[in-house]
Amino acid sequence: MSVTPRLVQVRQHILKRNDEAARTLRSRFRETGVFVVSLVSSPGAGKTAFLERVLSSLRDRNRVAALVGDLATDNDAQRLARACSGGTGVSPLVKQITTGTVCHLEAEMIATAVEGWRLDELDYLFIENVGNLVCPATFDLGEDLRLVLFSVTEGEDKPLKYPTIFNTADAAILTKMDLAAAVEFDAVAAHRNIQAVRPGMETFEVSAKSGQGMDRWLNFLHRKKVRNEE
Amino acid sequence: MSVTPRLVQVRQHILKRNDEAARTLRSRFRETGVFVVSLVSSPGAGKTAFLERVLSSLRDRNRVAALVGDLATDNDAQRLARACSGGTGVSPLVKQITTGTVCHLEAEMIATAVEGWRLDELDYLFIENVGNLVCPATFDLGEDLRLVLFSVTEGEDKPLKYPTIFNTADAAILTKMDLAAAVEFDAVAAHRNIQAVRPGMETFEVSAKSGQGMDRWLNFLHRKKVRNEE
Repeated sequence: MSVTPRLVQVRQHILKRNDEAARTLRSRFRETGVFVVSLVSSPGAGKTAFLERVLSSLRDRNRVAALVGDLATDNDAQRLARACSGGTGVSPLVKQITTGTVCHLEAEMIATAVEGWRLDELDYLFIENVGNLVCPATFDLGEDLRLVLFSVTEGEDKPLKYPTIFNTADAAILTKMDLAAAVEFDAVAAHRNIQAVRPGMETFEVSAKSGQGMDRWLNFLHRKKVRNEE
Repeated sequence: MSVTPRLVQVRQHILKRNDEAARTLRSRFRETGVFVVSLVSSPGAGKTAFLERVLSSLRDRNRVAALVGDLATDNDAQRLARACSGGTGVSPLVKQITTGTVCHLEAEMIATAVEGWRLDELDYLFIENVGNLVCPATFDLGEDLRLVLFSVTEGEDKPLKYPTIFNTADAAILTKMDLAAAVEFDAVAAHRNIQAVRPGMETFEVSAKSGQGMDRWLNFLHRKKVRNEE
């Protein structure tokens, strides 16, 4: 495509701006002591269901907040707000970022969304990206930990087909494990494909429905946060 | 984002070029009498499994070909080639388009891929787009029929969250119906959300695993092709 180079130039300009904004964000997160986790996956891999579980587990002993990106609707923010507040009503620390036609979140969107929040009063901030295995890969959001989720229903070769998103993540979460038998999920192949793309990547098998695997993941999260504070 | 307008300009330039290339393609498809169907969906919605079924069903009485886009690997082309040839070996009329970092197919990629093919000897050409619910929406590929697939495991609100991809498609295919009970799929909500975004859209419930719903869909396809020739 002869037009690609121009698009690449503009993209590189945007990425450079984004990297600067992400660096500023990361410093701010570090200073205020909030541990920031972002989630990327294809649409429907179960980011919101996973986060509902995580927020419900953490909220009794931690101060948690969440941002969630979608092209349209605030459905996910409503779901997460319920999980944050324990069903007691509206939680002020969940916000939807509606991107219109933009297929990813950018650092400046995060900076705008947290304006007015007392970050120093938070333990964890979760950022659920737009469901997309391509666009979010190259945008740093200033997070401490980036998770890539993929569900057992998606096909074991996703890491090979979308190597960049796996390469730019810190840990992988295999979701919907309760459906593994029904879809004849080949766990060995899935793990092999993750390791082929990102050797040594820590991987967790979970089910937001049954709760399977959530304890191991939450221990990992806690360890990461503690190590970050050292 | 103050940088967005420039990106939008470049995108519009690319879209204009693409529209011209797509118009040329569409004329060529029309003249040669090949009926062209494209498929869009999120990663892992089951485009390839669905196409395997379709190609197997059609190949005895029709001349079929397929193009398949992915960022990396030719896994899907290999799967479709087996379906096209009935397991007898390599089919020359299946081709993988590897896009690198590009999250969608463009009309020029299609034109390049079919170079050297005798389109007038084909009845059907299927084009499986890159798995993505955002980027492919605005790129016309010269197809006669665009299908948007979404699986029962993805969540019933996908049409509301990704309205553009549903708006630019001609029919919707609900896949993995064999898993509907296991995931407590709410068919009424899914159909309501499709109709909210794209009133009157024809929708098919299928399972590539069990074959459920394939006959109704194939009849629809046949009718569309006949009508196109009139």
